[in-house]
Amino acid sequence: MSQQFKEIHGSVVAPQGFLASGVFCDIKRLGTGKGSAKGPKRDLALIVSEVPASVAGLFTTNQVCAAPVKVCLARLKRGTAQALVVNSGNANACTGPQGMKDALEMTALVAKQLHLPAGRVLVGSTGRIGVTLPMKNVRAGIRQAAQLLGREAAHAAEAAEAIMTSDTRRKEIAVEFKLGGRTVRIGGIAKGAGMIQPGLSATGRRPAAIPLHATMLCFLTTDAAIGRAPLQAALREAGARSFNRVTVDGDMSTNDTVLILANGLAGNPKSEIRNAKSVDGVRFQSALNHVCLELAKMIVRDGEGVTRFVTVRVSGAQTFADADAAARAVANSALVKTSWCGGDPNWGRIIDALGYSPATVVEEKVDIGYSAPGSRKVLWSLKRGQPTKATFKALCAAVASKEFDLHIRLNLGRAGALIYAADLTEAYVDFNKGDVSDPSSLGG
Amino acid sequence: MSQQFKEIHGSVVAPQGFLASGVFCDIKRLGTGKGSAKGPKRDLALIVSEVPASVAGLFTTNQVCAAPVKVCLARLKRGTAQALVVNSGNANACTGPQGMKDALEMTALVAKQLHLPAGRVLVGSTGRIGVTLPMKNVRAGIRQAAQLLGREAAHAAEAAEAIMTSDTRRKEIAVEFKLGGRTVRIGGIAKGAGMIQPGLSATGRRPAAIPLHATMLCFLTTDAAIGRAPLQAALREAGARSFNRVTVDGDMSTNDTVLILANGLAGNPKSEIRNAKSVDGVRFQSALNHVCLELAKMIVRDGEGVTRFVTVRVSGAQTFADADAAARAVANSALVKTSWCGGDPNWGRIIDALGYSPATVVEEKVDIGYSAPGSRKVLWSLKRGQPTKATFKALCAAVASKEFDLHIRLNLGRAGALIYAADLTEAYVDFNKGDVSDPSSLGG
Repeated sequence: MSQQFKEIHGSVVAPQGFLASGVFCDIKRLGTGKGSAKGPKRDLALIVSEVPASVAGLFTTNQVCAAPVKVCLARLKRGTAQALVVNSGNANACTGPQGMKDALEMTALVAKQLHLPAGRVLVGSTGRIGVTLPMKNVRAGIRQAAQLLGREAAHAAEAAEAIMTSDTRRKEIAVEFKLGGRTVRIGGIAKGAGMIQPGLSATGRRPAAIPLHATMLCFLTTDAAIGRAPLQAALREAGARSFNRVTVDGDMSTNDTVLILANGLAGNPKSEIRNAKSVDGVRFQSALNHVCLELAKMIVRDGEGVTRFVTVRVSGAQTFADADAAARAVANSALVKTSWCGGDPNWGRIIDALGYSPATVVEEKVDIGYSAPGSRKVLWSLKRGQPTKATFKALCAAVASKEFDLHIRLNLGRAGALIYAADLTEAYVDFNKGDVSDPSSLGG
Repeated sequence: MSQQFKEIHGSVVAPQGFLASGVFCDIKRLGTGKGSAKGPKRDLALIVSEVPASVAGLFTTNQVCAAPVKVCLARLKRGTAQALVVNSGNANACTGPQGMKDALEMTALVAKQLHLPAGRVLVGSTGRIGVTLPMKNVRAGIRQAAQLLGREAAHAAEAAEAIMTSDTRRKEIAVEFKLGGRTVRIGGIAKGAGMIQPGLSATGRRPAAIPLHATMLCFLTTDAAIGRAPLQAALREAGARSFNRVTVDGDMSTNDTVLILANGLAGNPKSEIRNAKSVDGVRFQSALNHVCLELAKMIVRDGEGVTRFVTVRVSGAQTFADADAAARAVANSALVKTSWCGGDPNWGRIIDALGYSPATVVEEKVDIGYSAPGSRKVLWSLKRGQPTKATFKALCAAVASKEFDLHIRLNLGRAGALIYAADLTEAYVDFNKGDVSDPSSLGG
């Protein structure tokens, strides 16, 4: 099936009826003198729909979860929302009753500024854990963000910048497609960089077969007319194929959040999209999958210190759980990740990780090879547990690329799974060890 | 109970009737010009008992396991051994039928040199996976090692050097104690450095509650008179409290091996040690525990790039499995380990890792603190999920030490577990990424 959508500009403001803004209100308390030459990075974002929207969400399954996640989990039950406010620089996690009070105050302030019921405002946070929010700064930021809301691509870009922490670039995408003769758009922004191996579910409870583990945030908007239940189902499906298939460092955050607002202004026939197998349902799912997957891949490519983007493709497993566990064991092995950093086609470390994974693996059956991203032309280094005649030089060339696919065939069954993974570099360590003499430099 | 043993010199040759040697036979095929100023590091060790000995072992539970491990697993069923030969520089793992043939030939060569039945010779290997052994060099090495066997501490030191890979120093220990009026000794050598989170069992099958994951090798000798069954039981107990409680990088090797030979020459009454609760049984266990634990700690302290040795002590868990899982999640978190490297007392990353671990954790109940190694004077950074009044400066001072204990109280039950862990440093990454332009530099 050819793609039924095209990519367009504007991310979260591309769909009709959405406004965004991003401001700097000094949530890390850098003081005024600490910005870069370009000025300090924005740290508070606001995204607003002109009309009430259906809402769905996915959240961290970490047992320790931040106050804003708890607020969203409670408010999603209403099925309707209209605005979301997000800060970076402070996770508002492990902040006790004060943290919950602050998260609720953030939503109340937005509601007051925009003349909405507070229950229609959602909230997200990302940054260091265990520090209470500087609410004076946050209040000023929210007032300013509300004043600066706009529907230009530049406004969405400011929001995308404001949710970044250690990200080196904004993560934005939007697509346009047709539903029932009407033009429909889906847009999104995301942030990632570290503490990335999400295990998202709609309830905060762990879904089966998703192991554990980001602070990743993703905020999606669409003008599609779609009810809450099909929207949640579509988001769950898209999340399972994207955010839940990435890992940077194997750590699952307390704050991971994916939210989507669907305001219906495209005017497509709502009754047609209710069925996931309908033409409209399939088109919407396909477009949403693309948006989520591209944002998820941007998160891995821009992971802290990342120099290699590796798609680990496991096939021939006895069960999906086995395929998933095998792919994650390889994708999270410190030794495999450092070998990628060095461009070393070390299949020994890969088969070692497969062997200690919970998946059933038989050494004499394993094939391991490399290809260009998405290519079926695989250079096999190992077949049936035995080295092939591929030369060390040829294998080095295959893993020297910034992006490649790692193919693992277990040859025991028919199940497969893939994980988008990254290398482990000195830059990751350097960034995350921080500088205790400058606490404002310390990461999440 | 005060310690009933004292530490002595000589490691594996301290017990009566044991000989050792370590030679260089160029297993990495460095050529002759490549040694350091001191000459190339030894790479083949031989340890021999003058008389047949009871034998017990623990092996990797990796599903992909090396030929020497398979040989040992088969031969341990006989219960008696007399010699072991170990090479470094090549793991003889994933080497197919040729690898098995080579491992068996190594034992046959030793048997021939020492006029023993081949079935009484055990074998171990460590190094890069997937390369067949240079048997010409190995054969020459075994002949030389057999000629150079001796009972001096220097001979044991040469054996300890020969099993090193990325280790920066030898790991040796011996203790002396009394059983039934006779002087008994236990000695051991070990190697570690990378691919370290052993999950050892006597059968190669995974024991319950030991998650997964080193190449670590440990060879123990004793002149105690003890039967095969109580020896295996004692080794299992000692291993569970030592090697299975350490992690460097969370990777479990294909080659992990612990072997003990007990030749009985001390002449203690064998009937007394059969019962683990007897005075002699308790003394032997206590001494063996000490030997294994000290060697295990040496492995962590000398892990690749390690600058911090952290004992993660979890208490108040609902079950041992929970306590163990919680401790391992923290000990293997890339973000926690990098914060240790930077001396950052980042309890946020610790509680994040606890939250995504499989253990039941309630944020509002968690206490996190630091002490000097083994001290009960804990500086708490978090109590019942809330930051204490401990200053950032004081917490930084607590984690600035090269060695400290991390105390985690879940306050949900009575179970506890501890893990000996290490930081993650740029040096680890630099070492393990290797240099593909010089394949001989590439690690295991």
